Amino acid sequence: MFVGRVIGEVWATQKDVSLEGLRLLLVDPVAASDPSDPSYPAGPQGLVVAADPIGAGVGEEVVVAYGRAGRVAIGRGQDVAAEAAVVGIVDGRTGGEGA
Amino acid sequence: MFVGRVIGEVWATQKDVSLEGLRLLLVDPVAASDPSDPSYPAGPQGLVVAADPIGAGVGEEVVVAYGRAGRVAIGRGQDVAAEAAVVGIVDGRTGGEGA
Amino acid sequence: MFVGRVIGEVWATQKDVSLEGLRLLLVDPVAASDPSDPSYPAGPQGLVVAADPIGAGVGEEVVVAYGRAGRVAIGRGQDVAAEAAVVGIVDGRTGGEGA
Amino acid sequence: MFVGRVIGEVWATQKDVSLEGLRLLLVDPVAASDPSDPSYPAGPQGLVVAADPIGAGVGEEVVVAYGRAGRVAIGRGQDVAAEAAVVGIVDGRTGGEGA
Amino acid sequence: MFVGRVIGEVWATQKDVSLEGLRLLLVDPVAASDPSDPSYPAGPQGLVVAADPIGAGVGEEVVVAYGRAGRVAIGRGQDVAAEAAVVGIVDGRTGGEGA
Repeated sequence: MFVGRVIGEVWATQKDVSLEGLRLLLVDPVAASDPSDPSYPAGPQGLVVAADPIGAGVGEEVVVAYGRAGRVAIGRGQDVAAEAAVVGIVDGRTGGEGA
Repeated sequence: MFVGRVIGEVWATQKDVSLEGLRLLLVDPVAASDPSDPSYPAGPQGLVVAADPIGAGVGEEVVVAYGRAGRVAIGRGQDVAAEAAVVGIVDGRTGGEGA
Repeated sequence: MFVGRVIGEVWATQKDVSLEGLRLLLVDPVAASDPSDPSYPAGPQGLVVAADPIGAGVGEEVVVAYGRAGRVAIGRGQDVAAEAAVVGIVDGRTGGEGA
Repeated sequence: MFVGRVIGEVWATQKDVSLEGLRLLLVDPVAASDPSDPSYPAGPQGLVVAADPIGAGVGEEVVVAYGRAGRVAIGRGQDVAAEAAVVGIVDGRTGGEGA
Repeated sequence: MFVGRVIGEVWATQKDVSLEGLRLLLVDPVAASDPSDPSYPAGPQGLVVAADPIGAGVGEEVVVAYGRAGRVAIGRGQDVAAEAAVVGIVDGRTGGEGA
């Protein structure tokens, strides 16, 4: 899982039927916050598209889970064509860029 | 899942029999769009080869899903030798490079 | 699995019901320690959110496992919406930054 | 999946018994080809070791699949200790470095 | 899978019970060897913690497999809280840094 900021939304008319009615968000992972850390910035997973069964808005921070875990949150069983989903909306956090 | 641009196609005569007749696309993940973001560019997953059961063209943006999710979209059951597939063709998006 | 330092905690009121009562930690992967190594720093996985069934504190180093392995440690079966978890608290190590 | 060039081979006498007789190749993922792309070079997955059930040679380009998909191509069922395998030998491609 | 050098060991007293008695190694992935390659150095997966059911020593090169594949090598079934394991000790290789 990772924490990221929702930076936009993705629309697709032609898509797998199992994705009908699911919002797809574009999420930017939060980087580390310490420039003296040799691995800074530590956020190179790239942008992630996550299905959102919870209702997050653009600008909010979310927790994204992958694979089976993401599909558990989507709630349509394991035969849905998505492997990343929003599993929580962040109320607060300590640590990482912007905390 | 991620959003990427289809930059080409891959042909293989010698391949696993479960891949017969499946188009294989070369997809370049879309990076973040904000150069002031310390994790910019945030697109280092590298190029991905995705099976395409939907019919995307070179130059189009697509949503790619991994693992079981990708195979759901391929529609040949879980015993196909591919773990990434196009699950949607992007009509529009907000956020990310080029949006 | 990887070794990382717990740099903070994440709170989410709106979340998948399977995550109720689980602590979510923000973990920063430990990088390689040798600046002459051409791959240094080797820690670009970015920050990871891990469920913590063990009780690690901020500042401690932990071992994080992914997927089914992480859910084994969480102990709620395989239908929990998390794919990363703390599976051990590090007492000591040799190798890597800060060792 | 990704396209990579076979840059060598790996030998291991002491190994899991399920790997007996399987060739292990060292594969270097192909990067993006456009230096003006802000995510260039986009090939940072690192070198991958892939089991090769097809018979690729050093210098050839191959398609590598991960996880269950890779094991489908290996053809020894799902209890083999490998999660990456060559699933095709590339005849040609458009897009990416060297195309 | 990847080839990496064992750079140390990790000890954890508080850990998931399924990990009791398993050695945990810190492994540094081997990078590409060609500085003219635009993706050089290609080793940014970061340090990996791998369970070692084979008996590798610090300084040795090993092949590490992920997920189900790693647990096959561990040999305790699929309900062990580890998703990376040493599946072979490298006798020799061609390609990659240091070959």
